[in-house]
Amino acid sequence: MRIVLDGMGTDRAPGIEMAGAALALRELPNDFEILLVGDQAILRPELDRHGDFPRERLTIEHAPDRVLPGTPPATVLRKQPDSSIVRGLRLHKEGQADAFVSAGSTGAVMAASLFILRPLEGVDRPAIGTFLPTAREPLLMLDAGANVDCKPHHLVQFAHLGHIYAQDLMGRAQPRIGLLNIGEEPEKGDEVSVEAHQRLAREPGIHFVGNVEGREIIKGDIDVLVCDGFCGNVLLKFYESVAQHFTGMLRRAGLADRPEMQETFRALDYSEYGGAPLLGVNGVSIICHGGSSPKAIMNAIRVAAQSVRSSMVEHIARELASKEPV
Amino acid sequence: MRIVLDGMGTDRAPGIEMAGAALALRELPNDFEILLVGDQAILRPELDRHGDFPRERLTIEHAPDRVLPGTPPATVLRKQPDSSIVRGLRLHKEGQADAFVSAGSTGAVMAASLFILRPLEGVDRPAIGTFLPTAREPLLMLDAGANVDCKPHHLVQFAHLGHIYAQDLMGRAQPRIGLLNIGEEPEKGDEVSVEAHQRLAREPGIHFVGNVEGREIIKGDIDVLVCDGFCGNVLLKFYESVAQHFTGMLRRAGLADRPEMQETFRALDYSEYGGAPLLGVNGVSIICHGGSSPKAIMNAIRVAAQSVRSSMVEHIARELASKEPV
Repeated sequence: MRIVLDGMGTDRAPGIEMAGAALALRELPNDFEILLVGDQAILRPELDRHGDFPRERLTIEHAPDRVLPGTPPATVLRKQPDSSIVRGLRLHKEGQADAFVSAGSTGAVMAASLFILRPLEGVDRPAIGTFLPTAREPLLMLDAGANVDCKPHHLVQFAHLGHIYAQDLMGRAQPRIGLLNIGEEPEKGDEVSVEAHQRLAREPGIHFVGNVEGREIIKGDIDVLVCDGFCGNVLLKFYESVAQHFTGMLRRAGLADRPEMQETFRALDYSEYGGAPLLGVNGVSIICHGGSSPKAIMNAIRVAAQSVRSSMVEHIARELASKEPV
Repeated sequence: MRIVLDGMGTDRAPGIEMAGAALALRELPNDFEILLVGDQAILRPELDRHGDFPRERLTIEHAPDRVLPGTPPATVLRKQPDSSIVRGLRLHKEGQADAFVSAGSTGAVMAASLFILRPLEGVDRPAIGTFLPTAREPLLMLDAGANVDCKPHHLVQFAHLGHIYAQDLMGRAQPRIGLLNIGEEPEKGDEVSVEAHQRLAREPGIHFVGNVEGREIIKGDIDVLVCDGFCGNVLLKFYESVAQHFTGMLRRAGLADRPEMQETFRALDYSEYGGAPLLGVNGVSIICHGGSSPKAIMNAIRVAAQSVRSSMVEHIARELASKEPV
């Protein structure tokens, strides 16, 4: 198995990527190689600084251009064909790699993934799945920002994508699917939520447990939270920032190093969860935070490898292509 | 000034309400009286348990019926005219009181307030304002759940309501107004957000600072956060539950009593902020959490009294009625 890692994605590229790759090659099961894509003049010297890993499993693929933060996503394909994002995704598309991981601009990675990998049959809108820590196991929320102005049938498709991801990657045999809403009753919410609830309730192949209010998320009673990309994005970014705020307060209070707080800190540490998969495209595309640590990069590579091993894409294709058109 | 307090609102009514009323009459400036509305057979004995407050400033107004949690809000007016909510709001409407405070079902209080007090001229959709703790001062978020499926001009009206509330009640001379969105750029977001941004940017009489992402909220750089009632409600409930989750973890770790954590706890304690005003109706209607403490009830009474003192309703009426119809 070969995994493309965009070498020029993080805010501190390529040092973080190189360290993440080295960590992944040392720590994870050794059934994969890494294609590190980026400017070889920058990547090669960096490589030499990370000696302590199986170098035979890392290849540098030259891509001279880099997508800078703030670049309009729609222009990347046309104007930056030699960027690490576009080159890396093409390697995956052409079958020279099995998965793609990038900590570059979310919008650019998403737009390029959609265009190059293409949505699977039966998927109108691929969605970004992301983990939210809860009082129990983390849950998968989707969509975390790929789609605003969703229609009810998009939310139903998100439910299927989440169902399969939770089965294949999170080890949940019968994932419990909830719909983000402002009340428990089926008739609560905006027009889209009301109709989505009705559709989800009669949708075969998923275990829909009903509406989930904002206050229920943290309990972790569900495995998959389905929502519009607008609310999902707001919620995700808010949660991240609140977690940072809390841990910052503990740090300032001198309580951060106490052993009894370590579990809390770990639960709130997004680097534990790796990247966010773009689900519903014909390929494995994992999007990482621009501020990722080497550990977060490693965990994203872990997620990519697991996605390939579990044949998640084939699983989605099989499941969604058989659905009646809406 | 006379303030109606629904005596039958909280989950543990009427003990909490009575304790809250007693606290308010002891602690707050003595320019108001309280009309405690509810079943006098239940309220009178409770009164005798709280001797230590100025009783001459508390009157019990009999209302034999009570709106139970889960009652469909739309039926309350027709089916429960003798409920504490309906009777209390009518006392306010008829001029026998200047404000109304209730910890009853949010939906019922909102529906009855809209019907009895009526929206002010120029306000299509009254909105629930609520405080969110931040790293700096709390901000006012609206709408917190009164309206889903908002149009752009509703969001513009929310901005004006928030502007006035922040001036009159929060002491912010020139409130900074932000629009909740998934990106900073004006073109980001769903259709409603994009148009709302354009309208807010050219709207006179408010200081619009642009889009605010989920991760920016906690920073407290703005005074008023404008959003759809769907996202607002999700965000509010999520924040409350996350705050409870964090403080619970600290408690279990035995760190809750440490003096350095007290400020954190206070910042996260919703009872500090009192109730949530329904803004844009012709009257003062303050909605409290069903799980309110006596302190939260007192703070809601404080907010009600401040609203009356500052002539907030007249201020809103003056400001909004002069707006061009949309």
